[in-house]
Order: sequence, then structure tokens, then C-alpha cells
Amino acid sequence: MKIAIAGSGALGSGFGAMLYRQGNDVTLIDGWEPQATAVKHEGLHIDINGEDYHLNIPMYQDTKIPSDLQFDIVFLFTKAMQLESMLTHIQPHIHDTTIMVCTMNGLKHEERIVNYVDKSRIVRGVTTWTAGLESPGHTHLMGSGPVEIGSLVPEGQNNVEVIYNLLEQAKLNPHKSEDLQQSIWKKICVNGTANALCTILECRLSTLNESEYARKLVYDITKEIVEVATVDGVHLNADEVYHYLIDLNDKVGPHFPSMYQDLINNNRRTEIDYINGAVARLGSEHHIDAPINQFVANMVHAKEEQRQAK
Amino acid sequence: MKIAIAGSGALGSGFGAMLYRQGNDVTLIDGWEPQATAVKHEGLHIDINGEDYHLNIPMYQDTKIPSDLQFDIVFLFTKAMQLESMLTHIQPHIHDTTIMVCTMNGLKHEERIVNYVDKSRIVRGVTTWTAGLESPGHTHLMGSGPVEIGSLVPEGQNNVEVIYNLLEQAKLNPHKSEDLQQSIWKKICVNGTANALCTILECRLSTLNESEYARKLVYDITKEIVEVATVDGVHLNADEVYHYLIDLNDKVGPHFPSMYQDLINNNRRTEIDYINGAVARLGSEHHIDAPINQFVANMVHAKEEQRQAK
Repeated sequence: MKIAIAGSGALGSGFGAMLYRQGNDVTLIDGWEPQATAVKHEGLHIDINGEDYHLNIPMYQDTKIPSDLQFDIVFLFTKAMQLESMLTHIQPHIHDTTIMVCTMNGLKHEERIVNYVDKSRIVRGVTTWTAGLESPGHTHLMGSGPVEIGSLVPEGQNNVEVIYNLLEQAKLNPHKSEDLQQSIWKKICVNGTANALCTILECRLSTLNESEYARKLVYDITKEIVEVATVDGVHLNADEVYHYLIDLNDKVGPHFPSMYQDLINNNRRTEIDYINGAVARLGSEHHIDAPINQFVANMVHAKEEQRQAK
Repeated sequence: MKIAIAGSGALGSGFGAMLYRQGNDVTLIDGWEPQATAVKHEGLHIDINGEDYHLNIPMYQDTKIPSDLQFDIVFLFTKAMQLESMLTHIQPHIHDTTIMVCTMNGLKHEERIVNYVDKSRIVRGVTTWTAGLESPGHTHLMGSGPVEIGSLVPEGQNNVEVIYNLLEQAKLNPHKSEDLQQSIWKKICVNGTANALCTILECRLSTLNESEYARKLVYDITKEIVEVATVDGVHLNADEVYHYLIDLNDKVGPHFPSMYQDLINNNRRTEIDYINGAVARLGSEHHIDAPINQFVANMVHAKEEQRQAK
């Protein structure tokens, strides 16, 4: 089976490396030329939980995929705002039974992916593996996951099995989600609090837990997200989710979330519109106010403008 | 007439200097020992709109006011959270007709001052003079005001006249407010947007105007404040206030608001509870939601905790 990692930045490289080490036929693809060039010529240098690997995985820039390449499985790992462009580039390289796996942060990615493959061929999920990119060709992968996956429709269950086995062999710690939408919304709570707040306050996850008032911010954002989640038939308990988030921040305390890395370290635009922004938008479509999530999204955008992020 | 400046940091020193230069009998008082000691021994060095002055104005720490001193007029210029303590220290030094002038930022200071003098002896107001403190004994005063003042009750009108004439002679540019509560709430809109946002985003006032999203933040905070202001019978138009704020930010663009100076430059706790926090509290008492103002207050507090502000 030919596997493409469509979006091989920090997390994509990590998944690609884990799959490649298991003997899979993996191709890395990315839209960022320096990353594609570095890995193509010098291989991928990756630190996986403290151990260094140097892997010669084939890599192409998304505009330069050889025309005869066809993939059976595509893992989507772009930034949310680059998903559409990546799907366009990957479209000539998929066939009637290609499975697309999307464990990207953010809401409603499936509504765009479904324009390229049938719903039953989308394996959707979330993951708590964390990763970072030090420089082109040099990345790290941390944690132990899991990757929660599920199908959007009953007909997709076989494809979930295929991906589950693949991830299991590659030690990526897959779980089959009992309630996919709930898993997605719970991850939105993680990203909508940790990513947004660490980016605004310019701090590590542990700093949020150390401050009584930062914990209030976490709670207030969560409360709104939980209200909007009911639109998708997801009924979470805000207090339970809050305690889950505080525990999670404790576990990965020294980590800087990906949004912090994007904006503060690399001056790149963030995925905020697909997280807090998407919550506010979806809420507004269903007459559920989420003023704090909208405010948070605008504040991160103000910070992008202030830093002239690209 | 013996005049006390109760709270002689940046703005208090500036008002004290302007009054002293006009030949008034002024005494500076402050709770911060380094400031009191520096001015006592070396005089006040102050830059007023680009001109340097060195003035030997008497100064005492608030705990060391000579017992025989009695003041006819007290200008209150503490940080909001130090007002109560200052009033306690000043109480032995006021008499039956002492006038207290309060043009401090924040809501409802009069509810505390009224425990020390009759309502008719409180001259309340707001000012757009700006000031800063470089080091103990070294401050600057900028702008041209105005100082808007008014009385809380009709019987206080004579006292407003006294203060008006004093400020007029000292070129502090007084205006008699036609609607005192409206002036106070409009200033709350200024502080609730500019001070809070420049402190969170760590930027100058002009930076807010340069960003489309920062302007949205200004608008959303303003909209809530305007709604809560109705509790005090004040009916402002959010769009009009918003444009007033944007114009004001243009005029004083390079300035860093006092809250920024407190927290970012000097690692001191802020007055946020008396501005956005007070708006949210007052709103909540009257069943008017102000979630964004509460969120902003909590975020500034989170930042205080993060920086271990004193």
C-alpha cells in the first residue's frame, strides 16, 4: 500500500517516520519548499521521544509530485488553511478506493474533504501526539498519543479497521472512538483553550494551570464550546471537560502548543479560524452566542497583524 | 488654601507641579516610600510637555504626614486599589469643609470617598492628561487635558466652582461636565479598551488602530460597556463612542497607557478590577451580561499572576 503524508511539517513528519520505520511505503509531501528540499536532499532528521533517527523517506513539494504516483492511503496533516490547496494537488494521485485520514485540529474539515472522496473513505479523528519543527528537515515527535479514529458513516467502518491496523503496527497507539463527534469536540476544547491562551499569553501549558485566573479563562472558553457542541448532537459536561483539560495541561506542561510555535516562534498565521473562530461561527448559525470564542479569535488575529505574520 | 495631592505618582505629581508653579500651597503625599524619600530630599524633577522643571514641593509618605497638617483641598490620585488606604491616612488631616477631588480612572470611587466627606464635598471627574514616572522623583506630564469635573449633588456646585478656578489658574484646562456620569462612563470606555488591550497585546495605542481585528476588540468591549452604562442612566451610542476612541488613539498614538506602564514596565498589579472588572460586576448585579469585559479582566489578572506582579 502506498501511503502519502499530505502535509509533512512537524506532526506529519512524525507520523510518516513512525509508518516508514515499520516498513511501509511512505511518501512525504509538503507545500513549504524549504522542508521538501531539505528532506529530499538530506533525509529527515527526527527525534522521537528523545531518540534520534535519520530516515531517507522520499519527499516532494506539493506542486512537484511525479504524475505517475498513486496513493492508497493519504494522511492529511496540513495547517487547516492549507487543506484545500493540498487536496487540489493530491487529487490527481488518488483512486477510487483511496482512504483519506484526517486527524487535524479544527472543526468540519470533512465538509471539504468530501468534495474529493466519498464520505465512507474518510477516516476522521483526533490525536494528542505532539510535535515540533526545529528547522527544515529537523523535527521531533513526543508523547504516546493516542490517535482516536472513527468513521463518519457505517459503510466506512472497514476503512477504519485498515487504518487502525496500520497505526497499531506503527506503534502510533490508535483507539477506535466510540463517539467520533464527541472526540472531535473534546479536542476542540483542548485547542480552543490551550492553543489560544498560550498564544495570547505567550506561555507554556503549565503556566495556565499555575494561574487561578488563567484557569477561569479555560473554563469560560470551554463552557461556550460545550454549548455550541450540542449543535452536532454532542453533549459534554463543562466541568468534566475542564478537569480533563487541567489534567492534560499538567501532563504536557513544558510543551508550547502548535499555535504558539506558529505565531510566536515562526511568525506564521494561525489556525484560530478553524478552532475558536469556527465555534463562534457555528454557534451564530444556530443562534447560540459564543462571544468569548469570537473575542479570542479576533485577539489572536490582532496579534497576527501586530506581528505581520505570513 | 492648603492643597494635598493624595497619591503623587505620575499624574498626581503632574497636577501637584502645575498647581505649585502657580503659587499654591501644595503638599505631595504618596504611599510608595522611594518616591516620597526622593522628592523630600532632592525635589521633584518633572518634564511638562518637553520642558524640565525642578521643584522643591514638600512631600511626605502617607504614613508620616505631620499631625498638625490640615488640608482644605485634597486631590485623590492613587491607584484605585490604594484609595481606601490613602483615605484612612488622610482622614486626620481634613476638616468640615475640605473638598475632595477625584478624577481617577474607574467606576464608583465616590461610594468609598463618601465614607470620609459629605457627597457635596466630592468633586468628581475625569481627565485625559497623561503622565509617567521614570524613576522615584522623576516624572513627566503630557498633553493638554482637559479635566472634566462636576458635582454628584446640586449642593456641591459651589465646590466645583472653587476647583474649576484653581485648575483654570494652573492651566490644567478644566471643563465643567454637562453630564458627569456620562463623562465617567465615556472614560471607562477609553480605559476599558485602550488600557486593557495595550496591556494584553503589549503595544502602543496606535497599534490598536492599525489592526482591523484590534479595532473589532475595541468595538466589542465598548458595546458591552455602553449596555451596562444604562444602569447609571447613561445612554451612549456605541458607534459614536467607538469613533471617538479611534480618534483618541490616533492623537495619542505613541503613548503606552498607564496600565501597560504598571504591569509591563513595572510589574505592578493593575486597576483592571475597577475598570472592565467593575463593568462586569455592575452589569451582573443588574442582569446585564458583560462576558467579554469579565474575560478581559481575568486575562489581565492571569498576566499579573504569570509575571508575579506586586
